[in-house]
Amino acid sequence: MNIFDFAEAAKSASIKLAAFESDKKNAALAAVATALDARRNEIISANADDLKRSEDEALDAPLLKRLKFDGPKIDDVIDGINSLITLDDPVGETLTATELDEGLELYKVACPIGVIGVIFESRPDALVQISTLCLKSGNGVMLKGGSEAIKTNRILADIISEASVATGIPDGWLQLLESRADVNEMLKLDQFIDLIIPRGSNEFVQYIMNNSNIAVLGHADGICHVYIDKDADIEMAVRIAEDSKCQYVAVCNATETLLVHSAVAAEFLPKMKASLDAHNVDLCGCDKTTAIIDITAATEESWKTEYLDYALSVKVVDDISEAIAHINKYGSGHTEAIVTSDKTAVESFMNLCDSGNVFWNCSTRFSDGFRYGLGAEVGISTNKIHARGPVGLEGLLIYKWKMIGSGQVVNDFSNKSFTHKKLDKKFEI
Amino acid sequence: MNIFDFAEAAKSASIKLAAFESDKKNAALAAVATALDARRNEIISANADDLKRSEDEALDAPLLKRLKFDGPKIDDVIDGINSLITLDDPVGETLTATELDEGLELYKVACPIGVIGVIFESRPDALVQISTLCLKSGNGVMLKGGSEAIKTNRILADIISEASVATGIPDGWLQLLESRADVNEMLKLDQFIDLIIPRGSNEFVQYIMNNSNIAVLGHADGICHVYIDKDADIEMAVRIAEDSKCQYVAVCNATETLLVHSAVAAEFLPKMKASLDAHNVDLCGCDKTTAIIDITAATEESWKTEYLDYALSVKVVDDISEAIAHINKYGSGHTEAIVTSDKTAVESFMNLCDSGNVFWNCSTRFSDGFRYGLGAEVGISTNKIHARGPVGLEGLLIYKWKMIGSGQVVNDFSNKSFTHKKLDKKFEI
Repeated sequence: MNIFDFAEAAKSASIKLAAFESDKKNAALAAVATALDARRNEIISANADDLKRSEDEALDAPLLKRLKFDGPKIDDVIDGINSLITLDDPVGETLTATELDEGLELYKVACPIGVIGVIFESRPDALVQISTLCLKSGNGVMLKGGSEAIKTNRILADIISEASVATGIPDGWLQLLESRADVNEMLKLDQFIDLIIPRGSNEFVQYIMNNSNIAVLGHADGICHVYIDKDADIEMAVRIAEDSKCQYVAVCNATETLLVHSAVAAEFLPKMKASLDAHNVDLCGCDKTTAIIDITAATEESWKTEYLDYALSVKVVDDISEAIAHINKYGSGHTEAIVTSDKTAVESFMNLCDSGNVFWNCSTRFSDGFRYGLGAEVGISTNKIHARGPVGLEGLLIYKWKMIGSGQVVNDFSNKSFTHKKLDKKFEI
Repeated sequence: MNIFDFAEAAKSASIKLAAFESDKKNAALAAVATALDARRNEIISANADDLKRSEDEALDAPLLKRLKFDGPKIDDVIDGINSLITLDDPVGETLTATELDEGLELYKVACPIGVIGVIFESRPDALVQISTLCLKSGNGVMLKGGSEAIKTNRILADIISEASVATGIPDGWLQLLESRADVNEMLKLDQFIDLIIPRGSNEFVQYIMNNSNIAVLGHADGICHVYIDKDADIEMAVRIAEDSKCQYVAVCNATETLLVHSAVAAEFLPKMKASLDAHNVDLCGCDKTTAIIDITAATEESWKTEYLDYALSVKVVDDISEAIAHINKYGSGHTEAIVTSDKTAVESFMNLCDSGNVFWNCSTRFSDGFRYGLGAEVGISTNKIHARGPVGLEGLLIYKWKMIGSGQVVNDFSNKSFTHKKLDKKFEI
């Protein structure tokens, strides 16, 4: 079988899977959890092979850490599946119901998208999270993981596929791709694949967008901002700046630029510097900032940089409008936080920042599917259509318009109006 | 100013427009309606110039008819605006509310997408419908209409822009493009434009998708089907087939292929033929069909053809599964209808047909934004992400995640769980 056949099989399975009831999908998820538990030795052994080969190839230590998939990590993904089972199934939900005329009713009903292509990094737990989210939401999935994890991914895909199909899920719903060439083939198969979710660098996401007609849900850089307003509680501002920058630096929701209102800069900046110095954060700032604290001068490039490291750009602004304009110019539409006690400022900030996640008096690090209560996430979207921010089950759905008539034809309405009455009922045949 | 400046101006205006309250947007819409009424002589005169030039250039009669924009058509678009004013404003609606912890609340709130680029055909009424839908939904818009309608489009864009800006809507929210070269420039401006909606042929939509990184919401062909099940009421089936094919043939929701269960073919087909013969419909059919009624033999190509004319392909199938498989293989995911009294058949048909609109016992011609009660429509989407079927106000929205904290940082939750409690409240500062 080649990629075309894989994709055709996934599409065919996805159509049947779209009609599956929640109970059956949950039973399949339970079987997957049981099988992962029962076959954990096979998983650990495959992962040991991947780790050994990657060590021999001198893979970086952080990547080796992400690649490692041992007993505790297996427990984590099993916990994740068990919590996914408890989430409401959004498939089949009636979104709107309208009477068009007596005996002619229109329903907008949530349904799976179809086949999702996901290209993810080295972490094998991502394979389990993504495929079980797709199963629960009734989608077929084509997965391509990091090549370092090839044996681990193979055994995980086998277990998930076998265990789910044994409970009646249509065979072929999960397909594992193994090479970059496979990905390039997949990008052409818009007759079978409905959405591509690439996880990786901005350049990688751009490459995918440039080379496929299939819709892409992804995120560009995560250039997140914290704005300390003139009415900020300074102690709170310091704590939030510290957490937003330092709690975990290598992730997209970590803050890269701090904006500080000039009225509080003299009080805030030295306290902030003391706090960030304790983490050895490399600071650079605009002229007004360096006039207050002794740090490197920022350049135009500083405002555009996603450090993903212990580094931060700092700018003093004269008012909230300047802060918002800076965010909309240099930001990536990911996550922005304002620290203030002024509700009018909050309203402006939240309405005018053109970003998917806008926070008041809390850390940008909360921007995450697990923390949002979405269960796992397939990724964080900085797109402005379909789904935005952390994407869980609901981002894997679309809707169908279902109409129930009793013989009506459009010609009947040449001399007759539609009632367009909202109905408070669920779709039912 | 060049297209870059136009797009930058639209983006900048769209950010302010996103924060506008419903009252102000409705007041602007009312001012637009009043101005269109007051300046109808200018419109009619500009349209007369377009018609004269197009007649001299020997434009086809159907295109001339679409281009004509006279008193009654101006009344129609004014009525449309007045009914748009009465629709609920979906911007700012709270979609979900979740408590993450005491004093830490997460809201998913509907907001405009940003700037929409719309490329539409010759009808000048489309300009009014699309731009007023964008205004009501808080989006900036870049419009490119048919070149035949250049003077009509110019005066309409001027009136809508002037009248709305006079009531306080940010200047620049509406931009009119005038050449195909402008469109090609627009396709590159993904830093300003968030969504492209091309209305036109399948080839044209494909061209746009191949030449832009911006998300495209469009429809491919409209190859719609009516399936006459074994448990169909034959008289109803004939009426629905007739309306689906003949009520207006030149549109995407007209039916192009009829599928007939073999158990009722002998009874249904002759009656159907009599009904369609009265409209001079050119019929072709599979072997089983031509064994019952005397029509041309269908070819493989027949099942893939969007006639947009008085022509229909007919196929006899042995069961509902064959009908669904045919639809999923040859259809374009637009609109499918089943005629039957068997509820199990309806359920299979609606769940398994991979199309945006699935109807029971009514005509495919109902697949339309006005008939659905969406107000006007910007188009019909056969995409499977973001919006599907007729797209009105809601298809022009996305959401923001807004979080209200009281100083929380992620580090607090190292040893503490999130509550993830659903809240029954609207977002409020």
